[in-house]
Amino acid sequence: MNEFEYEVDLEVRLRDIDFMGHVNNAVYATYLEQARDRYFTDVLEVSLADVGTVLANLEIDYAQPIEADESVTVALGVRELGDASIPIEYEIRADGTVAATARTVQVVVDAETGESQSVPSTWRSRIESRR
Amino acid sequence: MNEFEYEVDLEVRLRDIDFMGHVNNAVYATYLEQARDRYFTDVLEVSLADVGTVLANLEIDYAQPIEADESVTVALGVRELGDASIPIEYEIRADGTVAATARTVQVVVDAETGESQSVPSTWRSRIESRR
Amino acid sequence: MNEFEYEVDLEVRLRDIDFMGHVNNAVYATYLEQARDRYFTDVLEVSLADVGTVLANLEIDYAQPIEADESVTVALGVRELGDASIPIEYEIRADGTVAATARTVQVVVDAETGESQSVPSTWRSRIESRR
Amino acid sequence: MNEFEYEVDLEVRLRDIDFMGHVNNAVYATYLEQARDRYFTDVLEVSLADVGTVLANLEIDYAQPIEADESVTVALGVRELGDASIPIEYEIRADGTVAATARTVQVVVDAETGESQSVPSTWRSRIESRR
Repeated sequence: MNEFEYEVDLEVRLRDIDFMGHVNNAVYATYLEQARDRYFTDVLEVSLADVGTVLANLEIDYAQPIEADESVTVALGVRELGDASIPIEYEIRADGTVAATARTVQVVVDAETGESQSVPSTWRSRIESRR
Repeated sequence: MNEFEYEVDLEVRLRDIDFMGHVNNAVYATYLEQARDRYFTDVLEVSLADVGTVLANLEIDYAQPIEADESVTVALGVRELGDASIPIEYEIRADGTVAATARTVQVVVDAETGESQSVPSTWRSRIESRR
Repeated sequence: MNEFEYEVDLEVRLRDIDFMGHVNNAVYATYLEQARDRYFTDVLEVSLADVGTVLANLEIDYAQPIEADESVTVALGVRELGDASIPIEYEIRADGTVAATARTVQVVVDAETGESQSVPSTWRSRIESRR
Repeated sequence: MNEFEYEVDLEVRLRDIDFMGHVNNAVYATYLEQARDRYFTDVLEVSLADVGTVLANLEIDYAQPIEADESVTVALGVRELGDASIPIEYEIRADGTVAATARTVQVVVDAETGESQSVPSTWRSRIESRR
């Protein structure tokens, strides 16, 4: 079992840069979302836009600024699944150096009622198979 | 000493809404930044855009979605200052109900060298006076 | 009939500022959208998020940069309605000075089919009454 | 001389999608900026973030919505240079179909004074050589 079983290359947009001249702190959350979306598409074979999950928790430790011309990779690893929750750890790398580490917890919800529901068994097996 | 000594009203923009029909998770980080900026301007009498601080840590617990037509208030309280660090706690309220709680740690840095430096004494006294 | 029959005050967010130190050019389009949304809510008594309109054309002439600490007002006036189209002119003012002028054309569409349809007569009369 | 002498592939981010379920109208302006930035880097061998240019005019004709899972390419062609101005035409394609056409005019300015200045001769020759 790898620490991070999935990697995504992202492009830094000029619009991601803020008044400080670096990638804005909120954009890191967008990079994480983009990595999650790709993981869901590639591994779970569903689109985040189509399935019912909501973000319950987000934590980011910023290690160093990301510059406009750097290449960004987000590595992610799904951690111990709860009944309804999917915890993920991330490493955001800029030109190969760790720029941030992060953790999120998503909760699977019924798209109609909004109530939490168990992680689908197909997702569980696909997540396991990737590790 | 109040739990939250400062409040900011923010406008939800239509652009804040995402594919799920609610305010996007990354936009919460922008709301926190906006609240910090107003606090720095009103209480510390400096602009975040002019002083050297970097965000070291961000944590958000999402409690409930924010809709396009809701009124958002961010309440914040500065916690025990470190030598170079400014920890802040937040409550994001939508139509009076807690939509999220959050914590950030900012580090004061020298704008030229990027090295951390002590929280200026004028800031310390202004932060204290506000509590 | 005023040149601009409706005005909206908007808050510049720190996140609106880009690598150049001014409000990013794309954010002007967001300011226009925000002004349209408020106009639809206040005058047409519908939400842009609920009704079927799509943007067909956008044009912005940038006159001067907008700074982080400036107060922004968007003035708008609806022009001669087409069968299915709503043309609007705008003036974006920063601290009272014109920062940009802009024009958009929206087309009313059927939310189900996506096909263009006539501007509802209730909208027409509310737009007229405002002038 | 090609109609469009330069093409850039862009990734649609989930965050680009708005309350309507399509790429937000303002994000098209960000796609154009991103394409310009790549053109400046590749062809003019300067970074938009480093050189003094300001956007004077932007016009976008929206032809069809862009979905979250589509591949976006921006094609651009620099038109007849003015003394200080660089007019560019664009085609935004989603999965090979034209989603929008656009035009921008940038003005070269002195980074210190903000006054317009002539397009550098090295830029002129690099732009010509690309056609």
